[in-house]
Amino acid sequence: MTPGSGVGSGDTVAGLLAEIGDIGLDPVRGGYSRPVLSTAELDLREWFLAHAGKRGLDVETDRNGVLWAWHAPSGSRDGAVVTGSHLDSVPGGGAYDGPLGVASALVAFDRLAARGVGGADAPARAIAVFPEEEGSRFGVACLGSRLMAGAITPERALGLRDADGTTYADALRASGADPRHVGVDRDALGRIGAFVELHVEQGRGLVDLDQPVAIGSSILGHGRWRVSIAGVGNHAGTTLMADRRDPMVAAAQLVLAVQRLARAVPDARATVGRLVPVPGGTNVIASRVDLWLDVRHPDDATTLGLVEQVRHAADAAAAEQGCTAALTEESFSATVDFDAALRDELRGVLPEAPVLATGAGHDAGVLKEHVPTAMLFVRNPSGVSHAPEEHAEDADAEAGAEALAAALEHLLTRRTRGL
Amino acid sequence: MTPGSGVGSGDTVAGLLAEIGDIGLDPVRGGYSRPVLSTAELDLREWFLAHAGKRGLDVETDRNGVLWAWHAPSGSRDGAVVTGSHLDSVPGGGAYDGPLGVASALVAFDRLAARGVGGADAPARAIAVFPEEEGSRFGVACLGSRLMAGAITPERALGLRDADGTTYADALRASGADPRHVGVDRDALGRIGAFVELHVEQGRGLVDLDQPVAIGSSILGHGRWRVSIAGVGNHAGTTLMADRRDPMVAAAQLVLAVQRLARAVPDARATVGRLVPVPGGTNVIASRVDLWLDVRHPDDATTLGLVEQVRHAADAAAAEQGCTAALTEESFSATVDFDAALRDELRGVLPEAPVLATGAGHDAGVLKEHVPTAMLFVRNPSGVSHAPEEHAEDADAEAGAEALAAALEHLLTRRTRGL
Repeated sequence: MTPGSGVGSGDTVAGLLAEIGDIGLDPVRGGYSRPVLSTAELDLREWFLAHAGKRGLDVETDRNGVLWAWHAPSGSRDGAVVTGSHLDSVPGGGAYDGPLGVASALVAFDRLAARGVGGADAPARAIAVFPEEEGSRFGVACLGSRLMAGAITPERALGLRDADGTTYADALRASGADPRHVGVDRDALGRIGAFVELHVEQGRGLVDLDQPVAIGSSILGHGRWRVSIAGVGNHAGTTLMADRRDPMVAAAQLVLAVQRLARAVPDARATVGRLVPVPGGTNVIASRVDLWLDVRHPDDATTLGLVEQVRHAADAAAAEQGCTAALTEESFSATVDFDAALRDELRGVLPEAPVLATGAGHDAGVLKEHVPTAMLFVRNPSGVSHAPEEHAEDADAEAGAEALAAALEHLLTRRTRGL
Repeated sequence: MTPGSGVGSGDTVAGLLAEIGDIGLDPVRGGYSRPVLSTAELDLREWFLAHAGKRGLDVETDRNGVLWAWHAPSGSRDGAVVTGSHLDSVPGGGAYDGPLGVASALVAFDRLAARGVGGADAPARAIAVFPEEEGSRFGVACLGSRLMAGAITPERALGLRDADGTTYADALRASGADPRHVGVDRDALGRIGAFVELHVEQGRGLVDLDQPVAIGSSILGHGRWRVSIAGVGNHAGTTLMADRRDPMVAAAQLVLAVQRLARAVPDARATVGRLVPVPGGTNVIASRVDLWLDVRHPDDATTLGLVEQVRHAADAAAAEQGCTAALTEESFSATVDFDAALRDELRGVLPEAPVLATGAGHDAGVLKEHVPTAMLFVRNPSGVSHAPEEHAEDADAEAGAEALAAALEHLLTRRTRGL
């Protein structure tokens, strides 16, 4: 087999996903829990590297833990056409968010190889797999692409802690990686000529439009803020109600304020999905409650204004319970409009595909600041994501891989023609 | 050294506690986290067994995992005078809740030995260490004494799950114990003639009275209930506010209702100290929130009435958010008045000690249904318990051990005289 030709692997998207169907199943939450650098996520990386090897692609792990699988017939990786996604999941997530983009990339590469796309003078193509896209373990989404792009400092990233207190630096060391290498990677960024990420849709846009595949227009601005409410821990049985400074009560007031404030702003979404009382014992009044706020709106000033309202509500609720509150930004991503010229080219390649915005963040949104990026979405009949009900029909997944192959073929051959 | 004489160990209560000062330190929460069957708690059990062995006491682990250290000069264990406490802690707890009673028992036994208490015809004496007194790992407090007393069925106890989904049966197996042996133990109960538990005070009663040691009068009725609120999990960015069925919002309404309802009932205490959103991701609307309710009141009917009000509040909050709620009892302990005759005997032995009630549950409260039990409390200058601030001064701890020795000596010699 010619390296990179990969003709006739015979893999389908559904078949590839079935191979990893047992990895990271969560018996408590349901669905999958595949946090970055967990056994499950490391097993998925091995699975990807094996498939890349089987196709004769050159594999590489860069300084930020991004996996790359290359087909570079000219020997040069400059101006490469890159696709990819991620393998980590939210806790109790679905089977498609992330892995669908990786499996579709492998199948799309098979189709390009079968069609003989990419001669000796063609641009390189690559599949990139980014770590900690969800931010579920260390709290900052798109951590791998942010590090590559210099959108987060190595110092801050390495000091991030998971729920057990393990730092990202320690987790990298435990996996055999060297945290000293982490940081902005202009070489890796600079060789990307275009980036196309395929993802399961996280909503019902394609269901309503009765189409299997869409082209992405933009990502809603979004961010994460941590609120710590400090009170006084004590025994639940011996402390009179009047003597309490209970941060759980203040946190409850804040959760209700978040819903009320977000409902008052059209198109805003604000969520408290993670809340951790410390110490968290049934017979213990909490001494502190940490909660995380996710806020999104198409207008970035509106997003940040809503967060300021939440800050005031947190202070007021804490004061009412004799507690104190501190709200800190963990990440913020401004609204991203994908590259208009690239989007219009893809509309030419995929004339049936509607153009949709998304409320979800993606590595493509981080890379967009540096390289032309585009996204494709595959229909999700449940409309649900970040939950076990997330789904894509096999036929739609194959249609997505074919759309991705067509988009990549266009970009590879356009550039050859353009030389 | 004569077995059981233990003369001249030279140990002090503070010295014994210092030996275990590094075991189970919690770097995230502060204080100690020593859940039952964790490495920390198993290390503490080894520490206790080593001290019992050093004193020539006969050690035994019964079918429910209760550790016993015996001095039985007559060879009979019937009508034994027993003291003891527990070594497990709440998450992020203090150094005294549990271990103070165990360390004081060892020192009290040293004093009895030094005084030559207990000849060949004296009743046996024993120190008992109970597992999972806090219920912090498997949700049911006083699990060891409840199993011994038949106050919980083996089937229910073995099926209890910790936060990771591990059952009590599996945790026992992993520790080398055989879960098939767990259950009511009439032999172990039947040989106890009297039980005296020493505990750090969980309140400021002794501070206000300027005394180091108190005799317990009663334990407030108390229980734990679990509330599960089920909604619809989804993506935090793509799901409009109007389309949500968010159980976190319903849980927040319930936390506020608990405070409001408890404040309306004089002497009631109601707490939500543990709350777990599932799956618990920042960018995920929870599909379910589990929270635990701790309610206490001197009048049991009032406690149960308050829980019914909370049940209605849970149903109403869930309905308002398009969710459903289920409230189930995990444990309930009626108000316990300790044995009046034994309490009056101890007042004779310790004439300076005031008599105080406690809002906290203890193994002594479970055993009280079957054997005469009493409690001693040691002054806690912080008034705080179940938190790192929990404290006892060294001199007060020694006074507590001396009071315990005096109480045990009275019971041992009273019975000898009575023969």
